[in-house]
Amino acid sequence: LDAQDRAQLLDTLEPLHPADVADLIEQINPADRRRFVELAGDWIGGEVLSELEEGLRAEVIGLLHPEVLTEAVRALESDDVVDLLEDLETEQRHAVLGALSAPDRLAVQSSLTYPEYSAGRLMQRELVMAPEHWSVGQAIDHMRAREDLPSQFYHVVLVDPAMRPVGNVTLGRIMSSARGTALSDLVEEAFRIFPATESETDVAYAFNQYHLISAPVVDEGGRLVGVITIDDAMGVLDEEHEEDILRLGGVTEESRLTDTVLQAARGRATWLFVNLLTAIFASVVIDAFADTIDQMVALAVLMPIVASMGGNAGTQTMTVAVRAIATRDLTAQNALRVTAREVAVGGLNGALFGLVMAGVAAVWFGVPLLAAVIAAAMLLTQVAAALGGIAIPILLDRLRIDPALASGPFVTTVTDVVGFFTFLGLASMVIL
Amino acid sequence: LDAQDRAQLLDTLEPLHPADVADLIEQINPADRRRFVELAGDWIGGEVLSELEEGLRAEVIGLLHPEVLTEAVRALESDDVVDLLEDLETEQRHAVLGALSAPDRLAVQSSLTYPEYSAGRLMQRELVMAPEHWSVGQAIDHMRAREDLPSQFYHVVLVDPAMRPVGNVTLGRIMSSARGTALSDLVEEAFRIFPATESETDVAYAFNQYHLISAPVVDEGGRLVGVITIDDAMGVLDEEHEEDILRLGGVTEESRLTDTVLQAARGRATWLFVNLLTAIFASVVIDAFADTIDQMVALAVLMPIVASMGGNAGTQTMTVAVRAIATRDLTAQNALRVTAREVAVGGLNGALFGLVMAGVAAVWFGVPLLAAVIAAAMLLTQVAAALGGIAIPILLDRLRIDPALASGPFVTTVTDVVGFFTFLGLASMVIL
Repeated sequence: LDAQDRAQLLDTLEPLHPADVADLIEQINPADRRRFVELAGDWIGGEVLSELEEGLRAEVIGLLHPEVLTEAVRALESDDVVDLLEDLETEQRHAVLGALSAPDRLAVQSSLTYPEYSAGRLMQRELVMAPEHWSVGQAIDHMRAREDLPSQFYHVVLVDPAMRPVGNVTLGRIMSSARGTALSDLVEEAFRIFPATESETDVAYAFNQYHLISAPVVDEGGRLVGVITIDDAMGVLDEEHEEDILRLGGVTEESRLTDTVLQAARGRATWLFVNLLTAIFASVVIDAFADTIDQMVALAVLMPIVASMGGNAGTQTMTVAVRAIATRDLTAQNALRVTAREVAVGGLNGALFGLVMAGVAAVWFGVPLLAAVIAAAMLLTQVAAALGGIAIPILLDRLRIDPALASGPFVTTVTDVVGFFTFLGLASMVIL
Repeated sequence: LDAQDRAQLLDTLEPLHPADVADLIEQINPADRRRFVELAGDWIGGEVLSELEEGLRAEVIGLLHPEVLTEAVRALESDDVVDLLEDLETEQRHAVLGALSAPDRLAVQSSLTYPEYSAGRLMQRELVMAPEHWSVGQAIDHMRAREDLPSQFYHVVLVDPAMRPVGNVTLGRIMSSARGTALSDLVEEAFRIFPATESETDVAYAFNQYHLISAPVVDEGGRLVGVITIDDAMGVLDEEHEEDILRLGGVTEESRLTDTVLQAARGRATWLFVNLLTAIFASVVIDAFADTIDQMVALAVLMPIVASMGGNAGTQTMTVAVRAIATRDLTAQNALRVTAREVAVGGLNGALFGLVMAGVAAVWFGVPLLAAVIAAAMLLTQVAAALGGIAIPILLDRLRIDPALASGPFVTTVTDVVGFFTFLGLASMVIL
């Protein structure tokens, strides 16, 4: 790059997969990125653009020559074009749409009429279908005759005269059957139809749960309008995992390694602000016992241990609960049983670590009553942590709030407040 | 179930997908589960067993009649049998192996010789291959003639005379090409070969990164021994995400909603114990300033805020770092740049929330110097949190320790110790 040697750069890039080229563009610094696009812009194809993360994609597209962009977009399948358009400004969007042939443009525009994160946005228009009464031979002849077969497809979708999908036949079955066999005798058992308005989350769950490879998408009239393939579903699962992990870690906004300092700081500030409020609330609880602490400073030394152990136990239970809700393993049927188990686990570990800590406190400060107080406070806090850790995500989920996003602050508040209150409260009653 | 009405139970189960039946078995309580298996045991097929989570699977298999088990296992593909065997006791393992036909048993046993979590364990033996010089017509005739085609396959693997895979041809391309076309003219661009000893993590990463659908697996001599398909890779990704989320939440052991109280308590205790040590360590820091707190109890009230804000900022950075390492977006190339960004983010948010908190403290306690101390302590703690949050996962990864598992305790220790030390230390120097 430094040598501005275009030929050498292209030589290096040639053997790379588009996904690796995209990773490379993501990892170099912004100045290098600009020079990269200037030098090799016309070499960057639609596939590389598809692989770029959303934030950078608009930036790179902005740097590209319009003709290069046109060329790049034409080579893509409809679902990739839709994905690309979603994040562009109106002006860039028009430029890309203008580059498409009329039928492709119509297909892409109609996909864009479906809500974001729906099956309609995820599907591709390119598919192979056949009337349900066709034979294997007819299907093969049809495919031989077609010039525009999708680059990857796994099923022939059987449709009835009203264009409603009635079954999937795998290419493998067609391949291995005699020409005279009716396609309808070969349909696969695992078959699901998705309305175009279905959420992509539900689609991804079904692909994972039922091991689907591709599935037809229908409009409100039940007519076939596209197919979703397993690699699209895998992409959605991957994004949702990313979101869950980041949200559990208190990173609420979309976050990318290429974000600027200001973007990243803003993305973290929301949660830090919520945490500041809960921390101040916990401090108000401590302040109520300021006189008690004044009389026995050991309480100030030990109180963070009670809160911290409670916070960690709460986070453990919450993580298990959030994950189980996401995988649909935690349902109304077993919620009570799982809650009872978590509370028992909290009681057991609370008793165990309460005893350990009582021993430590007794040796450290030599006050037997202080040891008894910390043991009792830890037991109570861990039970409260378990209860809060499971009940809060379940409740948020019922209220249709993402438990991964909102559980953390609530659980922490519960464990901090209960931790400080039980420890300092018991101490003020028992010791002083 | 209560009515012991077998016919009605089977009527209810019949329309369900095996994955849903497995979920049902997981969600009912242990006593019902036993009755379920007694009542409908011979109806439970290999597919349901494959879908069950590992802990329960051994339990259910133990309850099944040997003949039913034999029947169930025979219907499975080799990779599912391997998956099933991995978690069984030696005795159960022998029973299952004995149920297989001799060639199937050999195939399964040779898969089991590969290390756990390797491509060799993940692959299936059932595949379709063709010599590289064959034409489309020869391949189609071969598939027509074969009786034991895999139930799902997407490619014909081309092999050279030494059985080394040289390319993949999709069924779609074969379907749409003239009989005389050479298969070698139709090979797909995206083609990766995995050694059987490759880790399943690397395999899943490659499937996701390069949008593979199926890929050949070779032995140490480079000879084709099986194929891995995208649904297997999707399963591995799913498991790894689960592991990452749970480990980040401090749940170190494998954890399932069907674990007993004791199993679950043990699974959480390790991390709680580590946390107890770091919490005690933080308390020792506080204890060093016991005299200072004794003179100004407001310090005890405010100090948890400094530590908690630091802990949360550290967790945010750590989550972003752990995730970026897992997706291979954080590499040696951009580690320094990302670290610099995180520290800048920590400084920015530290300054912001330090100022807010200074205002709160000034109003609350009316001591201007206290406000200045808390602002400075929060700024320093947040910068340390950012540095620890990114450096610790990177360091652990270099040492080949899973950053999702071990980062948490280290980061918390850093933020707690720095938080208490800077706040109380500054206070003892400036105020008193």
